Amino acid sequence: MENTSSLSPNSPSPPSSSPTLYTNLKTIASPSKIKHAIVDLAINIKKVGVDDPRRIAHSFKVALAITLVSMVYYLQPFYNGIGDAGMWAILTVVVVFEYTVGATLSKGMNRGFATLLAGALGVGAEAFGSLFGPTVKPVVIGFLVFFLVAAATFSRFIPRIKKKYDYGVLIFILTFSLVSVSGYRVDTIIKLAHQRLSTIIFGGLTCIVISMFVFPVWAGEDLHKLIVTNLEKLASFLEGFGDEYYRVSNGDKSFLGAYKSVLNSKATEESLANLAWWEIGHGKFRFCHPWKQYLKIGVYTRQCAYHIEALSGYLDEQYQVPSEFQIAVQEPCMKMSSEVGKAIKELGNSMKRMVYPSTSYVHIENCKKAIDDLNIKLKMSMVVERDDILESIPVIAATSILVDIIKCVEKISEAIEELSKQARFKKPKDITSDENGKPHFRHRGAAIKPVDGGNDRELSTITVNSDDEIPQEMDLDKNKREINRL
Amino acid sequence: MENTSSLSPNSPSPPSSSPTLYTNLKTIASPSKIKHAIVDLAINIKKVGVDDPRRIAHSFKVALAITLVSMVYYLQPFYNGIGDAGMWAILTVVVVFEYTVGATLSKGMNRGFATLLAGALGVGAEAFGSLFGPTVKPVVIGFLVFFLVAAATFSRFIPRIKKKYDYGVLIFILTFSLVSVSGYRVDTIIKLAHQRLSTIIFGGLTCIVISMFVFPVWAGEDLHKLIVTNLEKLASFLEGFGDEYYRVSNGDKSFLGAYKSVLNSKATEESLANLAWWEIGHGKFRFCHPWKQYLKIGVYTRQCAYHIEALSGYLDEQYQVPSEFQIAVQEPCMKMSSEVGKAIKELGNSMKRMVYPSTSYVHIENCKKAIDDLNIKLKMSMVVERDDILESIPVIAATSILVDIIKCVEKISEAIEELSKQARFKKPKDITSDENGKPHFRHRGAAIKPVDGGNDRELSTITVNSDDEIPQEMDLDKNKREINRL
Repeated sequence: MENTSSLSPNSPSPPSSSPTLYTNLKTIASPSKIKHAIVDLAINIKKVGVDDPRRIAHSFKVALAITLVSMVYYLQPFYNGIGDAGMWAILTVVVVFEYTVGATLSKGMNRGFATLLAGALGVGAEAFGSLFGPTVKPVVIGFLVFFLVAAATFSRFIPRIKKKYDYGVLIFILTFSLVSVSGYRVDTIIKLAHQRLSTIIFGGLTCIVISMFVFPVWAGEDLHKLIVTNLEKLASFLEGFGDEYYRVSNGDKSFLGAYKSVLNSKATEESLANLAWWEIGHGKFRFCHPWKQYLKIGVYTRQCAYHIEALSGYLDEQYQVPSEFQIAVQEPCMKMSSEVGKAIKELGNSMKRMVYPSTSYVHIENCKKAIDDLNIKLKMSMVVERDDILESIPVIAATSILVDIIKCVEKISEAIEELSKQARFKKPKDITSDENGKPHFRHRGAAIKPVDGGNDRELSTITVNSDDEIPQEMDLDKNKREINRL
Repeated sequence: MENTSSLSPNSPSPPSSSPTLYTNLKTIASPSKIKHAIVDLAINIKKVGVDDPRRIAHSFKVALAITLVSMVYYLQPFYNGIGDAGMWAILTVVVVFEYTVGATLSKGMNRGFATLLAGALGVGAEAFGSLFGPTVKPVVIGFLVFFLVAAATFSRFIPRIKKKYDYGVLIFILTFSLVSVSGYRVDTIIKLAHQRLSTIIFGGLTCIVISMFVFPVWAGEDLHKLIVTNLEKLASFLEGFGDEYYRVSNGDKSFLGAYKSVLNSKATEESLANLAWWEIGHGKFRFCHPWKQYLKIGVYTRQCAYHIEALSGYLDEQYQVPSEFQIAVQEPCMKMSSEVGKAIKELGNSMKRMVYPSTSYVHIENCKKAIDDLNIKLKMSMVVERDDILESIPVIAATSILVDIIKCVEKISEAIEELSKQARFKKPKDITSDENGKPHFRHRGAAIKPVDGGNDRELSTITVNSDDEIPQEMDLDKNKREINRL
């Protein structure tokens, strides 16, 4: 079952078996129902805040921005009442201030530039219309507005514009229509436009400054965390799968459903990557951090989640007791599942710490050994027992999916490695001291003693060694071919 | 591979193998590149219009609404220039007019009610502040604005509010801040609020009327079509899978990738269902059409797509020639895949025509027969050849996935049936004439002659017979148990 909780987080889904009950729910609520609804709402409100306390901070940040902007206009005596100009500052804050810095920057800049462009064009249209005399002018301007608005509205369907400049086009339509039909003379318009633009810039800057310096929420950081969390969710499923499949453990089983949120993370990832594009460097992320590569990792992570979804079908209660055949392949199966889980965990961990993924290869190698072992066991057990062939089918299917998952994890590993190169992640420290205090180099888990212990030499060797940590494409291809043999 | 074309439909994704090439793309564009970009853009623009011509209609509808609203204010001499009031009508049209009727209704109604509520509260705040004298008043109002804005902003994170009233809360914040800090006397405010509200209502109504009566785009209809299209995509993959798996055909293979869009349709489906909630009855859909049930069908359709994603891995080129074992199970495999494809096609077809799904059972029954046949074939072939056991593993895995898909399709079938009940789909016409002109009844493909040919009698029998078309829950459970045995 897909996780439907995000569909309608609170309201019970219509009971499929009894349409009459569903209709009854729509009748007028009784007092106990109202009380229940209020308690429900209170629990929900608390949950929203506890789930992400930054939401509370955001609410106060917006309130602060609006109070600041409105007070400036309210207190200054030369603005008699808030009037036109101040209104635009408040309006800007309300619509521009978004949850993440990226979204605020995107909206603020879109609004600023679109207002400027549309204002200039509007003044031009107004001047052009005036050439025709007062009777024809409204018709000319009407046609201009009609066709420019139609063209601009259509442009909002073009994916590239929709992705980054949708709000800008909206503001362009608004400002252009307002300016060209305002019916003022051009010099009044210019004064008005100047006044309005400066208040919009004031409002926009207030938003950007507050969102960037008061408890900032960076879309890029959230994307980074989301990808790491998704990898961790897959890892905890796979690490626990073996025990669950062989009924070894009976503890908390919540980790078994966590991966489901990964299945539908595409939209969130894309929107965050899109917003991160607008953000300046922050924390560990430089200005042109390769956010697009995160989407690639996301694609492979989701692919892996699809396989896990298929695999989880084999944890059904129908297979209460492990079959004989299942037990025959227990060792390699449990090994595969736990090692692939560890590999993903290490990958997620290296992403989290932003270092080259160098420890996951060991686990992937172990997976491959387990696959070889599995092949031998499969051959053996199939030769021995021939009566329970139908019983062996779900087991074979499950192991086959596990192999697919291992292939997928190799893709994830490649994508994360590519990211490490693009984002220049730290190379892992390849020096550890052995018991005698002499340094030696670690190469994918195997300790290699250096030929020369000299300090200068050491450093250069480290560099070379670290570059070696990046696996050759050919190596991976070879590994793939090996796996594909199964 | 996931379909990444929707990520960045035009720009080539960064080539993973060569980061230097990617960096080069960011250097200053040469004239040929600019020309290429323009041609690219033109192709894109054309594609956007051809893909859905309603987008062109929508663009002209928006232009029409803005021209209408602005002309009314521009032409009427008693509005000296467009001034304050007219501005709000244009602003309303620009932000309220959305692509679908549901979205326009949602935004229009949210805007209207939020303005009314916030205006009233703002006047109250203004009056309350005046009690404290001119020095303390700004402080009191400042605090009021601060806390109400913070609370309202926080409420936008509550899923239930976010889903349906997000825009309303935004407008509430805007209007409340504007009114309470405007610094006018209460009687001026009331006059101003009345004027502003009436222009907002005028703008909103213009949008709603145009969006509903000029080439309307109904979110509900789009949701209905999306679900049907998704089912058709799955059907065409499954119907073609057998031929592809056994290298029988060499024709167009585009149908093999079509299902990929289903994997990520969750967000679209939910947003359409949400917008459809606002829509009045239209076409074949009544006012309270059970849109939530569509989401359920969507969940199962996606689950089926996940299995298909796993299945498509077995179409890899690595298995160039079908193995001996693969050929041994060819007949039941091809039967399973084509029959389950037909079952989905029939389900989609009955949804499309909005009639009870009565023809798909035959195909599901055929699937079950094919599963039984498969079990026999598997037993036989495994006993005969024992050397190529490893070769048989991917085949066993693929057939196992096919069985999972059949289970999934049963769930889809149940969900569509539930929808047929809730939405009162037409019962299929159970009468056809045989060669002699005498009517007979069809019951799931089997012809049953009526005992009495009289007209009155006929009608009553039809009703009873049609109700029988709804399969018993128990029957389905039994079938499930049968499938699970595999």
